[in-house]
Amino acid sequence: MIKVGIVGGTGYTGVELLRLLALHPQVELRAITSRADAGTLVSQMFPSLRGYVDLAFTHPDEAHLDQCDVVFFATPNGIAMQQARALLDAGVKVIDLAADFRIKDIAEWEKWYGMTHACPDLVAEAVYGLPEVNRAQIKQARLVANPGCYPTAVQLGFIPLLEVGLVDAGQLIADAKSGVSGAGRKAEIPALFSESADSFKAYGVAGHRHLPEIKQGLASVSGAPVGLTFVPHLTPMIRGIHATLYAQIKTDVDLQALFEKRYANEAFVDVLPAGSHPETRSVRGSNLCRIAVHRPQGGNTVVILSVIDNLVKGAAGQAVQNMNIMFGLPEATALNVLPLLP
Amino acid sequence: MIKVGIVGGTGYTGVELLRLLALHPQVELRAITSRADAGTLVSQMFPSLRGYVDLAFTHPDEAHLDQCDVVFFATPNGIAMQQARALLDAGVKVIDLAADFRIKDIAEWEKWYGMTHACPDLVAEAVYGLPEVNRAQIKQARLVANPGCYPTAVQLGFIPLLEVGLVDAGQLIADAKSGVSGAGRKAEIPALFSESADSFKAYGVAGHRHLPEIKQGLASVSGAPVGLTFVPHLTPMIRGIHATLYAQIKTDVDLQALFEKRYANEAFVDVLPAGSHPETRSVRGSNLCRIAVHRPQGGNTVVILSVIDNLVKGAAGQAVQNMNIMFGLPEATALNVLPLLP
Amino acid sequence: MIKVGIVGGTGYTGVELLRLLALHPQVELRAITSRADAGTLVSQMFPSLRGYVDLAFTHPDEAHLDQCDVVFFATPNGIAMQQARALLDAGVKVIDLAADFRIKDIAEWEKWYGMTHACPDLVAEAVYGLPEVNRAQIKQARLVANPGCYPTAVQLGFIPLLEVGLVDAGQLIADAKSGVSGAGRKAEIPALFSESADSFKAYGVAGHRHLPEIKQGLASVSGAPVGLTFVPHLTPMIRGIHATLYAQIKTDVDLQALFEKRYANEAFVDVLPAGSHPETRSVRGSNLCRIAVHRPQGGNTVVILSVIDNLVKGAAGQAVQNMNIMFGLPEATALNVLPLLP
Amino acid sequence: MIKVGIVGGTGYTGVELLRLLALHPQVELRAITSRADAGTLVSQMFPSLRGYVDLAFTHPDEAHLDQCDVVFFATPNGIAMQQARALLDAGVKVIDLAADFRIKDIAEWEKWYGMTHACPDLVAEAVYGLPEVNRAQIKQARLVANPGCYPTAVQLGFIPLLEVGLVDAGQLIADAKSGVSGAGRKAEIPALFSESADSFKAYGVAGHRHLPEIKQGLASVSGAPVGLTFVPHLTPMIRGIHATLYAQIKTDVDLQALFEKRYANEAFVDVLPAGSHPETRSVRGSNLCRIAVHRPQGGNTVVILSVIDNLVKGAAGQAVQNMNIMFGLPEATALNVLPLLP
Repeated sequence: MIKVGIVGGTGYTGVELLRLLALHPQVELRAITSRADAGTLVSQMFPSLRGYVDLAFTHPDEAHLDQCDVVFFATPNGIAMQQARALLDAGVKVIDLAADFRIKDIAEWEKWYGMTHACPDLVAEAVYGLPEVNRAQIKQARLVANPGCYPTAVQLGFIPLLEVGLVDAGQLIADAKSGVSGAGRKAEIPALFSESADSFKAYGVAGHRHLPEIKQGLASVSGAPVGLTFVPHLTPMIRGIHATLYAQIKTDVDLQALFEKRYANEAFVDVLPAGSHPETRSVRGSNLCRIAVHRPQGGNTVVILSVIDNLVKGAAGQAVQNMNIMFGLPEATALNVLPLLP
Repeated sequence: MIKVGIVGGTGYTGVELLRLLALHPQVELRAITSRADAGTLVSQMFPSLRGYVDLAFTHPDEAHLDQCDVVFFATPNGIAMQQARALLDAGVKVIDLAADFRIKDIAEWEKWYGMTHACPDLVAEAVYGLPEVNRAQIKQARLVANPGCYPTAVQLGFIPLLEVGLVDAGQLIADAKSGVSGAGRKAEIPALFSESADSFKAYGVAGHRHLPEIKQGLASVSGAPVGLTFVPHLTPMIRGIHATLYAQIKTDVDLQALFEKRYANEAFVDVLPAGSHPETRSVRGSNLCRIAVHRPQGGNTVVILSVIDNLVKGAAGQAVQNMNIMFGLPEATALNVLPLLP
Repeated sequence: MIKVGIVGGTGYTGVELLRLLALHPQVELRAITSRADAGTLVSQMFPSLRGYVDLAFTHPDEAHLDQCDVVFFATPNGIAMQQARALLDAGVKVIDLAADFRIKDIAEWEKWYGMTHACPDLVAEAVYGLPEVNRAQIKQARLVANPGCYPTAVQLGFIPLLEVGLVDAGQLIADAKSGVSGAGRKAEIPALFSESADSFKAYGVAGHRHLPEIKQGLASVSGAPVGLTFVPHLTPMIRGIHATLYAQIKTDVDLQALFEKRYANEAFVDVLPAGSHPETRSVRGSNLCRIAVHRPQGGNTVVILSVIDNLVKGAAGQAVQNMNIMFGLPEATALNVLPLLP
Repeated sequence: MIKVGIVGGTGYTGVELLRLLALHPQVELRAITSRADAGTLVSQMFPSLRGYVDLAFTHPDEAHLDQCDVVFFATPNGIAMQQARALLDAGVKVIDLAADFRIKDIAEWEKWYGMTHACPDLVAEAVYGLPEVNRAQIKQARLVANPGCYPTAVQLGFIPLLEVGLVDAGQLIADAKSGVSGAGRKAEIPALFSESADSFKAYGVAGHRHLPEIKQGLASVSGAPVGLTFVPHLTPMIRGIHATLYAQIKTDVDLQALFEKRYANEAFVDVLPAGSHPETRSVRGSNLCRIAVHRPQGGNTVVILSVIDNLVKGAAGQAVQNMNIMFGLPEATALNVLPLLP
């Protein structure tokens, strides 16, 4: 059994990790930490877990995380980088669901996240946990930077095009829409029901922290820097990301075949039949990314539609997928959950 | 392996049966019928099932349902009663998710459902599939009448009070609220998003088909006819029923202990700690019923809060639970699904 | 022109007052106060008001509210009672949308609101601003206690029954459902979209602050204390309250006629045709209360359905209605707004 | 008083016309037609109109529309073209809210709408009712083609850029999101609450009927054909369109000043301060279009955010605005309705 600890279990990625890990046949949940809620039963805060998770939140100082095999950080940005080294030194593998280890360029990271990085050398070591790109490195990794939600949906949509140099990498557009859970379980007015229900808006058009992460990933597969306009939007649903991607095609190829071939062996990327329009609910609660490929009116603009559940493939599910890879388990262990529709 | 057929798989109870049965280790899905959509891949209509259900809808005439071990009817009312006898005669067990076999009083059934019953003798034989009351009979049954969604939530809340004669059975009130999926997957204006979102209403106050079903069940456990006012409401959510139950208490007892004891051995009924307020989302996608018991200001009015997912414990999940019982399997097989929260 | 000031304009009752008063032909908005947001344009916080409200929020100390003709308090409980006397002494009329002046029994108020009341004598003077009951006194009042949202919907539904002693006043049940805006514009986790969307729950079953307010009002019209069980629920919509009221009838009368007659001259209470089920959206954005009367299966239980927009008839609209009465204006001035449907 | 008739009053544009016209000081509602619901009180179908609209639906044959001054067609496509000529011949002005007179190229119209056009000469005469472009012609028009919802939001966003040739007209992208009411009040499964709530999807990527309408309008202001990729999406809200527009800038100018100047005299177009993100709820129920202009990271891609209420500025409100212009009334008559927020 893999002994698992979770740091910061009171947010949505925390409860989602618990939902998935509670039925993982190789996992033994050892500790879930929370400073503010130490002593509270997890199932009291999240009644959905009653009967499945008996743990109470533990104060970080008493969690003995160094006795775990793997620790997930479901914390705000800037926490994992303070604690990762001690755990790694103790032989514990670390999966960070926040952004501390995602950006290789430290100056760029510090600009977007507004703090000094605590351990640039670990950033260099960390593997970006997108299995569809980095599976081999993840298998060997001690430290995995779990991708952001938007970056997962956007990269999986653009990668097949950029890997083969099919589109103009200098002029990419990602128009992305997220459910409100992407804002986290934080008491903030814009995320109130009465503020975000029955309304739609863009935000962060001038610049969003996921922009450098996406650009780094796309540059890596295309072999050169990319030009990307990224506009995130808030849509009145709980879970789900829908990325609508636009690129200018340079050569004529069978796009549908290209995508199907690229993801033929990926358990969690589903290329829909030509002409499809994936709905976010078709992946609700599951670790799947569903993708459709379009070329409207046969023009030069390719339109890719990519949907994920932001809390699963965009966070906790992908983290469990990474854990499975790191520990040599079948990649889909505990992720064989059917989407909830309707 | 249990060979399973589903009649009428294009509604919400149909897709929900498929979601649960697709991972059932003892089930082999043999046929899902639909006249209108014969030939269409199930996963084309319900993309959430892509990768899990490979069947296409079959025309009823070609489904060979008589070769199944059990057939679920996820059909409108009035269909199962036409086809059940032939299946039973062929040795097939039948679980009807519609209302054809729920009401023992044929005249009463015909009044509420507006049709002549096709097989009153089978009504007499049918077992009402509420495992928390009729588990022993279900185990022996050929034909199970799966309870309605409101009746499940309301009965599980009232039963502990009525079984011991604790409240005035002549003056019960059930104020129940249902998500819109309770109306089914039918093209009808009142169930449109733009009609039912951001609004709340009662309906059927003069009389709802679930009233006689609830009264029959409550009379059965209390040993005498009951007086019940039942007011259903439509609330703008997809899944979930919240029943708020009112009764006048006759004797002073420890209500919390009463409920906890009654359901101590029930895997799918969870009595919450005293003072709790169950949310429907705490059972979303799961087969659980969560119940809280209140006695406001120490008065004579007992208030019971009972929540279920109308498509799971209120329909498909309970049907699978009944199937497990009928075939001697562990009752929770394939129902060990954690609620999706948020 | 009536010079109007608003204390505490950053909540939902504040913006709603502004929406209604912006087009009031006899009103001149003089000041809207906010400590935290002094200097910010109102239309920056509430872009819906761009082009209609040019004011910025003013610090309370600089608002010169004593030069207004009337001041609305759209503040948390406990503020108006600190400031009302000075304004009244300066000849300013006061309408409090919070609860400071609603409960005549000071001890009861202090128990439910957890503070010592600052001016019990003003409570004695204050008029409870339910025009359908107290119109004459409101006309003469210097200080109006604007009713709560639940109390408005519940009282308007019960009053016709209790005024004529038609039902058992000792055994009333009010099962009420509110949209999330009833929780206010406060950064609190339970009111987040991801917490309250697609879910339904009861809350405060043990006791809610609106209980003593409702009981006081109902006792007043029935001439004796009443027994009331009040269960509020949260439903996933922005605006609206739906009260489902249950009472045991003592004599046989034409209920429909009783209600129609009682409200025949009320501009803002609409008794629907027999058999109706009012939807909250049918009053969305308007000052109307719509009511339907039922007696299911001809039994002794009367069921009243009463809907309002909690921010309008349940708060800001009723406050403007009270202002119109206090200043001798036609009662519907600025309230002639059609409900927004869909 | 202007005598007004409405053909096809049972859809959302119909009820919205009634909401606005009911308080129009110069309008006398004469007839609202419906074949299926002739005889039914309008307020029975739309209880929100109780007390404001006393009319019943009239059968078209008995509506005497030729005695009106103006007739609105709130009908499916293909109806107005059958009836417009007779009305025009009788001296009645016509405003068609459907698409019959929007596309000047008859062959193009017939291709997208799948019918033969009944009166190409009237198409030639009809004025496209976008007041911000065609105000002078609307003033003289007998027949106005009221713009579609997407076309209104998209054109108002692109026009200032294209009029001055600032962007590459060959490579425009409009990523648009609509609330579900855009699908109309039709009993169709995809518009059910349980199908469209808590989910997000694109649709019609291969081609949507509003594409030729938008291209025609943009070509007209830019003086040459445009290249446009238009991707509509369905978002789980009732009302509202959010268009996110992308264009490649050719010259460096002050975009904010350009937009502010272009719409300085437009009552219903509000250019937000630089850096803003308009929310659809900020125009809910109102005739406003709010626009924000961005140039992320100072790159060559301009991003325009444009929001409207699809049923008001995108349909009924714009139709009333056109009527006001046609009859020489102040353009904002009856349209001075504040947005409903929250």
